[in-house]
Amino acid sequence: MPTDVASLTREECWELLQREEFGRLAYGLDGETYIVPINYAVDEGRLVFRTAEGSKLSAILRGGTVAFEIDDIGPEWASSVIVRGPAVELSEEEARWADQLRLRPWIRSEKQHVVAITPTEMSGLRYRLHRPWRSMMPQP
Amino acid sequence: MPTDVASLTREECWELLQREEFGRLAYGLDGETYIVPINYAVDEGRLVFRTAEGSKLSAILRGGTVAFEIDDIGPEWASSVIVRGPAVELSEEEARWADQLRLRPWIRSEKQHVVAITPTEMSGLRYRLHRPWRSMMPQP
Repeated sequence: MPTDVASLTREECWELLQREEFGRLAYGLDGETYIVPINYAVDEGRLVFRTAEGSKLSAILRGGTVAFEIDDIGPEWASSVIVRGPAVELSEEEARWADQLRLRPWIRSEKQHVVAITPTEMSGLRYRLHRPWRSMMPQP
Repeated sequence: MPTDVASLTREECWELLQREEFGRLAYGLDGETYIVPINYAVDEGRLVFRTAEGSKLSAILRGGTVAFEIDDIGPEWASSVIVRGPAVELSEEEARWADQLRLRPWIRSEKQHVVAITPTEMSGLRYRLHRPWRSMMPQP
């Protein structure tokens, strides 16, 4: 592995997961792969998010493993954490606890189901970025 | 759809894809779903990225549809674009053209294969963010 890529420890992965609140969920349905941005929170070693009824909910609850990614991209470094694991829907009682988390939806829409991913795989990388074209791009 | 969510036009989706350079690729392999961050560039209606040999390359070239996401998250608004489509490996000659794009790898590692996704589905949303807990969080 080149010296400008470093693995994150499990603790560092959790720190980044705690700090962020926006990630991307990937799941399979009928042999197809889908990806969707989600707002999430960390609760007792799980990643918890709200979702509405629909194909996403059906797919992620079918017992398969879902994949989830967050990242933190700065001017010189980028960190990314990838989590994989099964997703389950929380009971109404458990879902009420989720209201104690910072899991209010970012957007006002009906998202009545609360789902938790329990990570069975977790990995994180921190990259030093080389973006030689940056100096050639128009500056905002 | 609530008024604080708006669909992006196809043109707006392409504008955002042109502006960003970092996204997340989701793909299926043996019934499992994976997600990985990638650096990409837009070239003639395709999303082009480099990758090393490995399970990711095998999986995305197997003819299935891959899913790709980018986003732009500001303090009050977030935009996200989702693309799905087949991925193909470019020939050596086509890959040389990719060197003209801003597709130098962010990190120095061996990524010899150049892959292009041709979008068959594209959608984008712009959300107004409501983050009521923000005022309760420690400020950086």
